[in-house]
Amino acid sequence: MDKEARLSWTGSGLVFDGGAPGGPQIVIDGDCAVGPSPMDLVLMGVAACMAIDVKVILDKGRVPFDGLDVRAEGERREKPPRSYRAVRLVFTVTGVPPASRAKVDRAIELSREKYCSVLFSLREDLVLDTVIEGG
Amino acid sequence: MDKEARLSWTGSGLVFDGGAPGGPQIVIDGDCAVGPSPMDLVLMGVAACMAIDVKVILDKGRVPFDGLDVRAEGERREKPPRSYRAVRLVFTVTGVPPASRAKVDRAIELSREKYCSVLFSLREDLVLDTVIEGG
Repeated sequence: MDKEARLSWTGSGLVFDGGAPGGPQIVIDGDCAVGPSPMDLVLMGVAACMAIDVKVILDKGRVPFDGLDVRAEGERREKPPRSYRAVRLVFTVTGVPPASRAKVDRAIELSREKYCSVLFSLREDLVLDTVIEGG
Repeated sequence: MDKEARLSWTGSGLVFDGGAPGGPQIVIDGDCAVGPSPMDLVLMGVAACMAIDVKVILDKGRVPFDGLDVRAEGERREKPPRSYRAVRLVFTVTGVPPASRAKVDRAIELSREKYCSVLFSLREDLVLDTVIEGG
C-alpha cells in the first residue's frame, strides 16, 4: 500500500487525531472548531496538490516567484451525502517577471490535465474552475 | 459556496499553511516532513468522514463505546497522476456491548452507502474495502 494513516477519536465531540505512522499529526474536527473537517481536508487537498504542481513546474522552468496563494471554494450538493459538485481555485502568484506570466497559466493547465493526484482521485464529473488573479 | 479554504506557500520547500478563513490552520507539506501531503489529506478525509458518521450513528442509536480508531491504507495507480485506485479502512471500536456489535457493522454500511460526503466526492470506481477488527 502506498499511503497509510491512523486516526483516533480523542474522546471529545467529533474530534480525531490523525497522521501517517511516525509522521506529522493533525487534528480533524467534524464540527470545524479545533481542526479542519473531512470535507475541508479534501478541498485543501486539491488546492495544495495543484499549488505544489505549480511550484514544481515553475521551479523546473526556472521561473522566479515570491508568493503563491490559493483561495479554494467548494460547492456541495444539497442532498446527502452532500458531495462536492464544483470547486473553484483562485491562484495568486506574485513576483513572476511579466515575460514569464504565461508559464503560470501553463503550469496550472498541466496540473489539471496531467499531474494532480488529488484532482484525478475525485469524481470525474466535478466541475473545476481555475482562475489566476493579480500577481 | 459551501466551503472555503486559503492556502499560502510558506516560502520553504513544498510547505503551505492552510485553513478556512478564521478557522483552525494546518501545515501541508508535499514532502510529508512537517505536515501531511495533499494525498495524505484525502486518505485522512475519507477515514475521518466515515469515522464521524459511525460516531454520530452509534450516538443516535444510544450504543456506548469508548474508543474509535481507523487505520487507512491507500493504493495509488503507478502512472501519473497516481490517483487512488483503492482504499482500505480498518475500524477498531472498543467498549461496545456484545449485543450491540452488529450496530457497528450497520453504521459503517450506512456511511459507505448513504452518508459519507468525502467518499461520494471520490471517483466512482474507487475500490473501497472496510473491515472491523477486535474491539
